[in-house]
Amino acid sequence: MSCLASPTGSDRFPHKVKQSSDFIIRPARTSDATAIWRIIEPVIRAGETYALPREMTQTQAIAYWVGTDRETFVAEDNGRVVGTYYLRANQLGGGSHVANCGYIVASDVAGRGFARSMCEHSIELAKARGFRSMQFNLVVSTNDRAVRLWQSLGFVTVGNLPGAFAHPHKGDVDALVMFRKL
Amino acid sequence: MSCLASPTGSDRFPHKVKQSSDFIIRPARTSDATAIWRIIEPVIRAGETYALPREMTQTQAIAYWVGTDRETFVAEDNGRVVGTYYLRANQLGGGSHVANCGYIVASDVAGRGFARSMCEHSIELAKARGFRSMQFNLVVSTNDRAVRLWQSLGFVTVGNLPGAFAHPHKGDVDALVMFRKL
Repeated sequence: MSCLASPTGSDRFPHKVKQSSDFIIRPARTSDATAIWRIIEPVIRAGETYALPREMTQTQAIAYWVGTDRETFVAEDNGRVVGTYYLRANQLGGGSHVANCGYIVASDVAGRGFARSMCEHSIELAKARGFRSMQFNLVVSTNDRAVRLWQSLGFVTVGNLPGAFAHPHKGDVDALVMFRKL
Repeated sequence: MSCLASPTGSDRFPHKVKQSSDFIIRPARTSDATAIWRIIEPVIRAGETYALPREMTQTQAIAYWVGTDRETFVAEDNGRVVGTYYLRANQLGGGSHVANCGYIVASDVAGRGFARSMCEHSIELAKARGFRSMQFNLVVSTNDRAVRLWQSLGFVTVGNLPGAFAHPHKGDVDALVMFRKL
């Protein structure tokens, strides 16, 4: 692991890089919209891991993913956008010290550590932003890879929501609430 | 318990009434905005039970409470609005079969069963709307009265969020995730 400064001078958060110097995580730009859509569309259409309408249009999905209530980043490997994540406050008011994130990696590069790198990046960013903990509200229990990854990054299952996710192939499956202090 | 039809013919849900025939729960109308604000403002300002910004303006609070993503009701006792609640989907997509509600009763009539009546009403309404369960995402653990009330209405604590609510007087306190099948 090495660290690189953000390519945008206006953002002072030191963006950690992954294995090589050709990997960076940087704030998303307007011009990333198409690349982000290519990554998140298959996941939205599949409807197996995110509680988003499967029929969402590109405009709706981008409006959600790059909303004004969150900071959105892209992971770029050798010049290609391979993943994206957002960080936001999970709740308002008395709940605004808890961060929430969503991460998606391009399916053809799954398992290469990009999700882990984005999560590590988000944890450091959330600390820098003053958040005191991070919560995932709805981790689909059948999403084994995600559950194991979050556990390995210090997240603990603090809640089990019975049948709270209508899986398109498996019916109503449990969802987990995962949490870690920052 | 008796039942009265909704005063608005356009809404076919049979609105249950509480103890007397002078108590009804009906869909909120635009003209209820001031009455709703009088009820929810003290709770928002106190910041002890709802994860909403304490400095919220009336316009912001009404926009939230009567948002287009939810159905909002008022409880009227002898012609006075004494409480209000909303029902919405807790999540989109694969999470949209789980309902979520918020309830607030005017402080000077607390403990008279209005919150219970509204919750019972919301459970029946949620069933009628096709929801399969109901979830409260952030029940502040120090809000004993609410926790006991939801338990008595069949809600079970399925999650404990450590320090997830910044109480204005008690510091970071736990929040509960409460859930029931419909």
